[in-house]
Amino acid sequence: MNFCSHCGHTVRFAIPDGDDRPRHCCDECGTIHYQNPRIVAGTLPVSGSRVLLCRRAISPRKGFWTLPAGYMENAETTVEAAARETREEACAEVEIHGLYTLINLPHIDQVYMIFRADLAGSFDAGPESLEVALFEEHEIPWDELAFPTIERTLRHFYADRREAAFPLHVSDITAEDRERYFGSA
Amino acid sequence: MNFCSHCGHTVRFAIPDGDDRPRHCCDECGTIHYQNPRIVAGTLPVSGSRVLLCRRAISPRKGFWTLPAGYMENAETTVEAAARETREEACAEVEIHGLYTLINLPHIDQVYMIFRADLAGSFDAGPESLEVALFEEHEIPWDELAFPTIERTLRHFYADRREAAFPLHVSDITAEDRERYFGSA
Repeated sequence: MNFCSHCGHTVRFAIPDGDDRPRHCCDECGTIHYQNPRIVAGTLPVSGSRVLLCRRAISPRKGFWTLPAGYMENAETTVEAAARETREEACAEVEIHGLYTLINLPHIDQVYMIFRADLAGSFDAGPESLEVALFEEHEIPWDELAFPTIERTLRHFYADRREAAFPLHVSDITAEDRERYFGSA
Repeated sequence: MNFCSHCGHTVRFAIPDGDDRPRHCCDECGTIHYQNPRIVAGTLPVSGSRVLLCRRAISPRKGFWTLPAGYMENAETTVEAAARETREEACAEVEIHGLYTLINLPHIDQVYMIFRADLAGSFDAGPESLEVALFEEHEIPWDELAFPTIERTLRHFYADRREAAFPLHVSDITAEDRERYFGSA
């Protein structure tokens, strides 16, 4: 951030009075530009014994498989965001159940929120997906998943399914976890 | 938003190619300035049969009682944010348990996340609090609570405490709910 989005003056990165961390501050109009983490909302859509995955048509991780998920927008709820992303990426309607994984990624300022859902009806590849398909557990492309959040959510799901109980899982993914996951890619 | 924070050019509010909603777009450098909801993280600190509340020293709702909570910062987790806010507003350390209420406020682009917690040791008023105190259920100042999210979280807590089970509660507060709550204030 170089300029004040309110008045166009150059901003200064400094700790405001009464604060304890640096912000982008405008000395001209006095605006302090706060930056905060973003929510990535999505679903784990289930159809019988199978799970729906989308193969990404866009970067990052184009060609890799993911659960339908994306940035929550203003003026919607987390459940609405999760359903909208599922509609956009998989052309699918879902019946959403509880929040299932809440994963913090502090090194990239994201919070993932994945809801368990039942697939309701048909599906198809939306503009951000190369293909959309249903997978049995033994068919999951573990080595071709797009993000560690997706792998972790699926691992929880298959472990919990054996117990027939799906509690909320809150966890973190660090920069080190992510590097291990992506290797040198 | 009037100016591009990257290059300082004036921005245009229009739907970018391939998108479906208007964003602040810079025609000079091509940056699209997305705006997304913010997380408000906090705790419900419990000490024996009592709950800790803070009386706000700052607007909005100065003088009203709240649970310690505030905007999640970049580079932290939701649990870290909840603990930090408790430390800042109530000078208190807590042992955090599960996520307890997740409340969407789509009309003001906020998502509240309140964690149940055990108070560990002493407390005091931080710079944003006029006073901090412990309340039995019959002492809760229901008519002097700062926000509907706080009232709802406390109502869930006392109902759940009678059952000795504290599941996650996901819900929404609409503009109409909020207006009813604040009345003409």
